Amino acid sequence: MTEEALMLSLHRDATATEHALRSYYDEADGDIALLLQSEQYSLFAGGKRIRPALTLEFCRLFGGDEEAALPFACAVEMVHTYSLIHDDLPCMDDDDLRRGKPTNHKVYGEAVALLAGDSLLTAAFEAAATNTAAGAETSAMAVAYLAGCAGRAGMIGGQMMDIEGESRELSLDELLRLHSRKTGALINAACVLGAMAAGLRPGDARLERVNSYAESIGLAFQIVDDILDVTGDESALGKRTGVDAAHQKNTFLRFYPVEQAQLYADRLTRAAVEAVRDWPGSEMLCALAEWLARRKQ
Amino acid sequence: MTEEALMLSLHRDATATEHALRSYYDEADGDIALLLQSEQYSLFAGGKRIRPALTLEFCRLFGGDEEAALPFACAVEMVHTYSLIHDDLPCMDDDDLRRGKPTNHKVYGEAVALLAGDSLLTAAFEAAATNTAAGAETSAMAVAYLAGCAGRAGMIGGQMMDIEGESRELSLDELLRLHSRKTGALINAACVLGAMAAGLRPGDARLERVNSYAESIGLAFQIVDDILDVTGDESALGKRTGVDAAHQKNTFLRFYPVEQAQLYADRLTRAAVEAVRDWPGSEMLCALAEWLARRKQ
Repeated sequence: MTEEALMLSLHRDATATEHALRSYYDEADGDIALLLQSEQYSLFAGGKRIRPALTLEFCRLFGGDEEAALPFACAVEMVHTYSLIHDDLPCMDDDDLRRGKPTNHKVYGEAVALLAGDSLLTAAFEAAATNTAAGAETSAMAVAYLAGCAGRAGMIGGQMMDIEGESRELSLDELLRLHSRKTGALINAACVLGAMAAGLRPGDARLERVNSYAESIGLAFQIVDDILDVTGDESALGKRTGVDAAHQKNTFLRFYPVEQAQLYADRLTRAAVEAVRDWPGSEMLCALAEWLARRKQ
Repeated sequence: MTEEALMLSLHRDATATEHALRSYYDEADGDIALLLQSEQYSLFAGGKRIRPALTLEFCRLFGGDEEAALPFACAVEMVHTYSLIHDDLPCMDDDDLRRGKPTNHKVYGEAVALLAGDSLLTAAFEAAATNTAAGAETSAMAVAYLAGCAGRAGMIGGQMMDIEGESRELSLDELLRLHSRKTGALINAACVLGAMAAGLRPGDARLERVNSYAESIGLAFQIVDDILDVTGDESALGKRTGVDAAHQKNTFLRFYPVEQAQLYADRLTRAAVEAVRDWPGSEMLCALAEWLARRKQ
């Protein structure tokens, strides 16, 4: 698949996701207008929508109906957005720029930003639980899986390791565990929920390869993130660079020079491609893995 | 039912809930030991466990199995605890005392407290979604209902109104909506999830009376809270009094003198009792409503 075809596919999935995301804000509520504004400010801030695209693509790969995948895609994107809002708060990373715009709390204040994050997290589980196209059994399974990946065993656990890592140097092993939780777990949820929407159940051998793909691109994504924080362009990235060094963050560049880190990301990308390329219709997933490892933003 | 019998029933339900809550922390995780400590610090801080008792009691009232209600009871209590942790943060109410102990962020710092709240909210939905005793269909329904009550349409919406209310005087009507969302919605979820665990489905006429009971005790609870903030004893309450006035909070005492506010709470209590007393086995629910309206802590 050419990069142009990949971009077209991503754009189409992003449009479908955004249309579905907007539907959760159809009802006006004068009592909490500012909260609704704050949530939508971050939810529609121009994210790349990689995670929902993974959900939709894995659903299609296994012959599922996109309608059954969309609520799960929205749920994953809401969880991702909430995590960014809370991560940017002064008590966490204290960032004032995200995707080229002031962070949520810079616009709406800390209290509203906190609640907007809480609300998006809650809405994510509501969206997943009310997925009528997928049915109740799949919905309950998806909520449980998403919660496992987003919670203390996954993403929140990774954020916790990240905080503790600011006061000491982590080992490479700890850094790998940190990123597997902080970034990898939610990417994994995005992929697996797509497969679940197509009817795959826990124990299905195909899920092992889905996991392998997700873990590989998740780690590669994080390595490239670390590289871009050093070599990237602020205006292309839409966020400050050099942040990791300023926060004394543990990054892969403490263990590898930039060139070797890129080779590591490339090796992971090949493993990701390896995991899915035998399946007919996996061209987009292969192209996405390769693009993510070479992205400039 | 005598007050002694009520206390015994509450104590028994609290013990069962705490035993179940502890089971979610059975696995050690050295990478996030501090996060797990922080969560448990607030989750086992000596709360009265009113909400889980309501879940268990409504399940029993409708002939359900307590095993099917316990994960929902835990989920509601986790949501309640997360809301207290986030509410106490400096950017929100900035409280340093809760249930007679330093608030979570005073002990663990703001970043860990934020993540502990996020983690408890996430764990709540995981607990509800993996309720095997209730089955997948009931679990998905419970997740959706709990999310609706906890999210922007419910509790978080109420917190948002509370924040906005600090900068202006709310009307009595707005104050009623605020409390219906901030306190009432989660109490409602506690009651309805118990009924769901016993097999009641949306549309069941009995749920109207469950809602009526929940709304009445929820509002009465809040009115008594406002009264206790003025007349209560700090050491009995385990939190500072006079906080509402200091924060220029909108309370019922702006609209009613203490005696009239108590009469209002009593009237709501009679409505709550009225809603359930025809059902055999509702003695504990009636006694609980009456005790809540007259509590000193």
